[in-house]
Formats: sequence, C-alpha cells, structure tokens
Amino acid sequence: MKYGVAIFPSKKLQDLANSYRKRYDTKYAFIPPHITLKQTFEATDMEISTVAERLKDIAKKFQPFKLNVTKAKSFQPVSNTIYFKVELSEELQELHVALHDEKFCKSESEHAFVPHITIAQDLSDNEHSDVLGQLSMLDVSHEEEVKRIHLLYQLEDGAWTVYETFRLGAE
Amino acid sequence: MKYGVAIFPSKKLQDLANSYRKRYDTKYAFIPPHITLKQTFEATDMEISTVAERLKDIAKKFQPFKLNVTKAKSFQPVSNTIYFKVELSEELQELHVALHDEKFCKSESEHAFVPHITIAQDLSDNEHSDVLGQLSMLDVSHEEEVKRIHLLYQLEDGAWTVYETFRLGAE
Repeated sequence: MKYGVAIFPSKKLQDLANSYRKRYDTKYAFIPPHITLKQTFEATDMEISTVAERLKDIAKKFQPFKLNVTKAKSFQPVSNTIYFKVELSEELQELHVALHDEKFCKSESEHAFVPHITIAQDLSDNEHSDVLGQLSMLDVSHEEEVKRIHLLYQLEDGAWTVYETFRLGAE
Repeated sequence: MKYGVAIFPSKKLQDLANSYRKRYDTKYAFIPPHITLKQTFEATDMEISTVAERLKDIAKKFQPFKLNVTKAKSFQPVSNTIYFKVELSEELQELHVALHDEKFCKSESEHAFVPHITIAQDLSDNEHSDVLGQLSMLDVSHEEEVKRIHLLYQLEDGAWTVYETFRLGAE
C-alpha cells in the first residue's frame, strides 16, 4: 500500500489554496491542501503499524512550530506546478531529515526539500503564465502554528485517506 | 467551524465504495468513504481543543471492535441515497451515544442511528433503481476491525480535512 506523510495547514490557508486548486489543480479532489513531508512510500499492512509507532516517537520529539507562507512561486522549468512557498524553517528541515532516516523507513533519495502547498498543476504554458501572473500580485504571507503531522494512504482511484495523526510534542 | 466524527474503513472497503461513488456520489470528491458517527456540529477554535481532548478520552474507553458490512440498501423513500449497510453493533451504538452525550459536546437530537457508508446520492429515480438493482446482486459482506476514529472539519468548498485521529483503547 502507498503511504505518505504531510501537514494539513489551517482551514484559513486551505480555503485560500482551494479557491485556486478548484480551478487549476488536477489533484484537487484527491487530497486537501497540504505540505508533503515524505513522498509516497510502500509499506505492507504489517509494516505500517511499526511505521506508525516510529512516527509517533518522531512527533513526540518535536514541539509545535511556526510555519510561514511567503509567496506564490512556480517549479518552472521543471514543471508547470504553482505553489505557495513555505519557509524552510529549522524544524521543517529536521522533521524532513527524521522522516528520511533509514531508522524511520527506507525510501528513495529525493531532490532537495522545498516545502510547499501546491495550488495549480498540469497547466498549459498559457494558463501557467496567467495564473502565476495573478498570484504574484497577491499578498499570501501568512504565519501559523503546526501542531500535528498526518500519515496518509492512497486509494486505488488516487485519493488519499488519513491513516493516523500525531501531535507534535505529545506525551 | 464545522466539525464531524467518522470512521474510515479499510482501503479494501474504501476502494470498493469508491468504484461506485466515482460515478454515483456527488460528494465523492469531498471526503473518502466513511461511516459518520457524529453529524456536522459547530465549534470555535477555542472549543475544538477541548472537544479533541474529550474525544481522546472517549476513544480510550473503547477497545478496537469488529465492523460488519452486510449489503447495499437505500434510504428510499426518504432520499435516493444508496449505502453499504453496517451492522449496528453494541460498540457502534455505545460510541454513538458517547458522542451525543452533552458531556462531549452539545448537538442537535437526530434520527435513529443507521450506520452506513454512502455510495450513491442525488440520483434520479431511474438511476437509483438501476444502481440499486446492480448492487443488490453483489455480495458485499465484509468484516474488519475498527481501530481508530477521526475528527474532521469542513472547508469552505465543502471538502473535509482530518483534524486528528484517536486510537481506540490507546494509553
């Protein structure tokens, strides 16, 4: 089964992201607005309870931390994906490292961690320019506190369901 | 903000439900297949942490329990909603009672609890007959274990995000 780890930001930020995603994100219906901490990885039904326990332990070691969204950006020329840029804080970096340590669970090495909330993807070049143009003029700066992380799994149709959430710093 | 409490069944059952929901459920994109334990209720940002604490306490008092899906049924003549019927076990009944006790959080009285997984809604009468006819011939009997319950909140576009999950019987 396919799993992933993500942060769901506040309703306020999700509502803002969804006002764009509704029109511009082909994955809109598959998952609420989120910040991916660990990309899709495979685990069996047996393995996942161990993974969940380890994730619980990792979450315990972190305290709730501030998350800052600064502006809308694009992954061009790599892809036409537009996103809200999330500041790479020390805590996000450490969380990312902990989730990619082999003590947590094996996973492919990946690109540098660029924390973000996707708001548009699979756009044509014209759409991409239009949407990015609109969004560049928008002040999306926003700060909030991250209190929990989510372990999710993917259904056959591509949609994601939450398996379990873990409070940061919880006893 | 609008909150609700639900059980997400196993991936296997969700995949089966979604194979129908994709075509026949207008709320398909808003939430994965689920069993509602407590209908939408209002809570402020302040109240919800207390609600979450109480839900954690309630979850602790229950042990994981068996969930049985028996067949596809319809809410007609009340509505054209088709669902997988979930057997009303003692545990489900007690969980439902605990979530509607005023010690948990105030909520409107509602109809008798008919645990179910919606697979089709807002169908025309013809579609309803067709789909129900197809599904009646299908053996959907299924048993699994419920290990956790989910507290969700609703975004402005109608979609639901998981706020937190609670393990049944957890320390």
